[in-house]
Amino acid sequence: MSERLYLFDTTLRDGEQSPGAAMTREEKILIARQLEKLGVDIIEAGFAAASPGDAEAIHAIAEVVKDATVCSLARANERDIRAAGEAIKPAASGRIHTFIATSPIHMEKKLRMQPDQVVEAAVAAVKLAREYTDDVEFSAEDALRSEPDFLCRIFDAVIQAGARTINVPDTVGYAVPHLTTAFFRRLIEGTADSDKVIWSAHCHNDLGMAVSNSLAAVMGGARQVECTINGLGERAGNAALEEIVMAVRTRRDVFDLETRIDTTQIVPTSKLVSTVTGYPVQPNKAIVGANAFAHESGIHQDGVLKHRETYEIMSAESVGWTHNKLTLGKLSGRNAFRSRLQELGILPAGEEALNAAFARFKELADKKREIYDEDLFSLIGDAVATERYKLVSLKVVSETGEQPRAQLVLSDEGRECHGESVGSGPVDATFKAIESLVASGSELQLYSVNAITSGTDSQGEVTVRLQQHGKVVNGQGADTDIIVASAKAYLSALNRITLDTVRAHPQV
Amino acid sequence: MSERLYLFDTTLRDGEQSPGAAMTREEKILIARQLEKLGVDIIEAGFAAASPGDAEAIHAIAEVVKDATVCSLARANERDIRAAGEAIKPAASGRIHTFIATSPIHMEKKLRMQPDQVVEAAVAAVKLAREYTDDVEFSAEDALRSEPDFLCRIFDAVIQAGARTINVPDTVGYAVPHLTTAFFRRLIEGTADSDKVIWSAHCHNDLGMAVSNSLAAVMGGARQVECTINGLGERAGNAALEEIVMAVRTRRDVFDLETRIDTTQIVPTSKLVSTVTGYPVQPNKAIVGANAFAHESGIHQDGVLKHRETYEIMSAESVGWTHNKLTLGKLSGRNAFRSRLQELGILPAGEEALNAAFARFKELADKKREIYDEDLFSLIGDAVATERYKLVSLKVVSETGEQPRAQLVLSDEGRECHGESVGSGPVDATFKAIESLVASGSELQLYSVNAITSGTDSQGEVTVRLQQHGKVVNGQGADTDIIVASAKAYLSALNRITLDTVRAHPQV
Repeated sequence: MSERLYLFDTTLRDGEQSPGAAMTREEKILIARQLEKLGVDIIEAGFAAASPGDAEAIHAIAEVVKDATVCSLARANERDIRAAGEAIKPAASGRIHTFIATSPIHMEKKLRMQPDQVVEAAVAAVKLAREYTDDVEFSAEDALRSEPDFLCRIFDAVIQAGARTINVPDTVGYAVPHLTTAFFRRLIEGTADSDKVIWSAHCHNDLGMAVSNSLAAVMGGARQVECTINGLGERAGNAALEEIVMAVRTRRDVFDLETRIDTTQIVPTSKLVSTVTGYPVQPNKAIVGANAFAHESGIHQDGVLKHRETYEIMSAESVGWTHNKLTLGKLSGRNAFRSRLQELGILPAGEEALNAAFARFKELADKKREIYDEDLFSLIGDAVATERYKLVSLKVVSETGEQPRAQLVLSDEGRECHGESVGSGPVDATFKAIESLVASGSELQLYSVNAITSGTDSQGEVTVRLQQHGKVVNGQGADTDIIVASAKAYLSALNRITLDTVRAHPQV
Repeated sequence: MSERLYLFDTTLRDGEQSPGAAMTREEKILIARQLEKLGVDIIEAGFAAASPGDAEAIHAIAEVVKDATVCSLARANERDIRAAGEAIKPAASGRIHTFIATSPIHMEKKLRMQPDQVVEAAVAAVKLAREYTDDVEFSAEDALRSEPDFLCRIFDAVIQAGARTINVPDTVGYAVPHLTTAFFRRLIEGTADSDKVIWSAHCHNDLGMAVSNSLAAVMGGARQVECTINGLGERAGNAALEEIVMAVRTRRDVFDLETRIDTTQIVPTSKLVSTVTGYPVQPNKAIVGANAFAHESGIHQDGVLKHRETYEIMSAESVGWTHNKLTLGKLSGRNAFRSRLQELGILPAGEEALNAAFARFKELADKKREIYDEDLFSLIGDAVATERYKLVSLKVVSETGEQPRAQLVLSDEGRECHGESVGSGPVDATFKAIESLVASGSELQLYSVNAITSGTDSQGEVTVRLQQHGKVVNGQGADTDIIVASAKAYLSALNRITLDTVRAHPQV
């Protein structure tokens, strides 16, 4: 039998650190349940000490997830460890992931600690974590730029203290695959009880090699990889789960490892994460990009299609690409709606949220003949958002040669306000009309629209990124009317900007 | 002194094979000149035998590019080689790149040829190509799934026949880095005159490892890598030039190779390619994604910024990220406009195109206070498009509870037509109004919008992908009014759909 490769997903922690990707508790639960369905082994649900909101979200995920280990990150100090330990308490299987930097530059410039002190702090953290759970992971931040001898020393010590997983992150995305393999071999050989722990890789993509470095680590003995859906993450992101899983599966001749992943859930998971975070997936992204399997879509007019196997190393179906499925229509009832959401893994918690989603569904079905799975994803994304401001009505007139004008009514905690403005375009006029009422003083950093389904009656999904006093949030809105979707997205961003307080921002 | 690594850019050939990325001759020239400025060594400008339009574009690029070799692809047959040879004739330095498949599955299923016949065809092709130029490259299609012994045999034969570059493509994106290094070593050792040629890698990204495989090939002895800007290309795309270049530069300790690339031109080139092809770059893309250097943008509220060097392995400035530069305003004259375009490397050829661009600039400056470089890129993208249909005027009214209505006037080769429609949103109404006049019967496959600059008065850049009888085109339109931009994008796609005839579609 092949050995197991453990998939550790950090979309909800390292992924969430992407600018504007902060998620609400409900959104995190939605994604966690989909990750469980996908079959990841460990879900890093957040960083409990970052804020009370983070801790609550981890706690809530620990309550609902049954088939995956739920993990919280913690720096190597008492406060962080205790916050993490409390947050994962309800989990069927809970893990604390504690870390400290081990590279000379980080120890000197960031920690201002001597190597001995770093080892001491790591050991104390692991010991304290073991009071909460047997499943403790230790990470040496910036390991790929650390001294191997020092790493072996600290790993010996934390294994002695009770760590069961040893993670070796390439924090700055600096590694080169063949050296990564050698580095892991060196560490595993130089650490006394190396066979008592699972070795883990955590790679960033700054030079485009995160996936290869993760797999190179596996060649060197790692049996856990830390990754995110769509490669989401700060800067150029983390190693993409979908690429690692499909590489291991497609090249079983090289890796000979088993994962627990249900690959047909890859594309639905990718779409859910993209919808919730507002991070688009570029068409030429491997596995989950719209073009990844485009040789299937009729573009090979020269007859290549008849020899599909000559170019196909994996099938679109195996990763969950299906033809747009017409799932529901105007006449579908609440039960049909509910069970489709359940199948898709996006059933919101609680009757109230379901009712809100169903109301939105009926509204949409009035405007749009055919409702696809993608529409449902976006609908649910909308429905779980917390709302102070809501759009009541909007009128826009735009004519060549005239200044576009928007008139709108919005509800601010139930109170209706009327606003009006002209602008350089109808979207600009709408945003200005909102600001005439709200005066948030925030700056628009990004505006993008993707059609969720094809056809001209598709919903436009608008993402708006606002910055206010250094804080960055994304908001999404979907509607068949792009101006309405824009207004919703702007309001959703405003609703979020008041949500989170400033949070600590760990780099692993 | 370090050895040279040659950069072979195939954005205009393999990149252009992405669905909807077909470019006009003018657009290709624009990109070729920017690639020259970037410092690539070889520009694969197209596939001359594909269509007369392709051959003309290569010819035109060969006329204007002075500092890079201009190359045409050609299958291993007389017609293709002659077409390529003619197309590159004006080049200061011209290359013919001929290929034939060498994997058992491709020889049997696609070529229906015996191995001996394949060798014979390859040799004949190289010999014929040498009648046109001394610089002949041979590719063994699907090499990574071919028998090494057979590859050495065919390489021996084509080197004897005069090939100077031997390219080993991973056509299906199947390779794993450590095996790629070994594979190149094996081929180079097994080929008699291996030291007389440059060995080359051409990697696809289906499993997310194209860049690592390219660099692994370099570790195995390759000194040319074939790549594209933004990793553009069919399916999951090709190896991304910017990632390879920055990996080699950042990890000089590992690679010790020099390139001729001016890295500060990377981001401008990326933006130009994205604008022209309508392929967005996702924010978490390495090097050229909007977030790639986001640790510089004030998100590290926890004080990490004061130790920037702890996380920074390259600087944003080194790859050409600059703060949005206010370049021109309402009062800027034609000369200022012209010289800024020249600095950006996007000066269109001919006075007529410049005048059209300047007229658009004046129009835009009326609506938008500040004109940034990004605005100019999009303006030029617009100006070089060929136009049968043009938008004359548009009026849209959209009100909650009412069906949105669009009335528009467009010019069809100078003749004005009036159309009107309702729709599920203002964009839908506009597209339906256009179709009420044009009746193209095409299907909308993709609709997306990106703001080109930040701020609410930014231009929206709309991409529309249409399919008509199996043919796929992208159209772009930019305007401060998103509905107007959408109409322009739809018309631009319609203008393109009539442009190209069906073309052969090689897979290398």
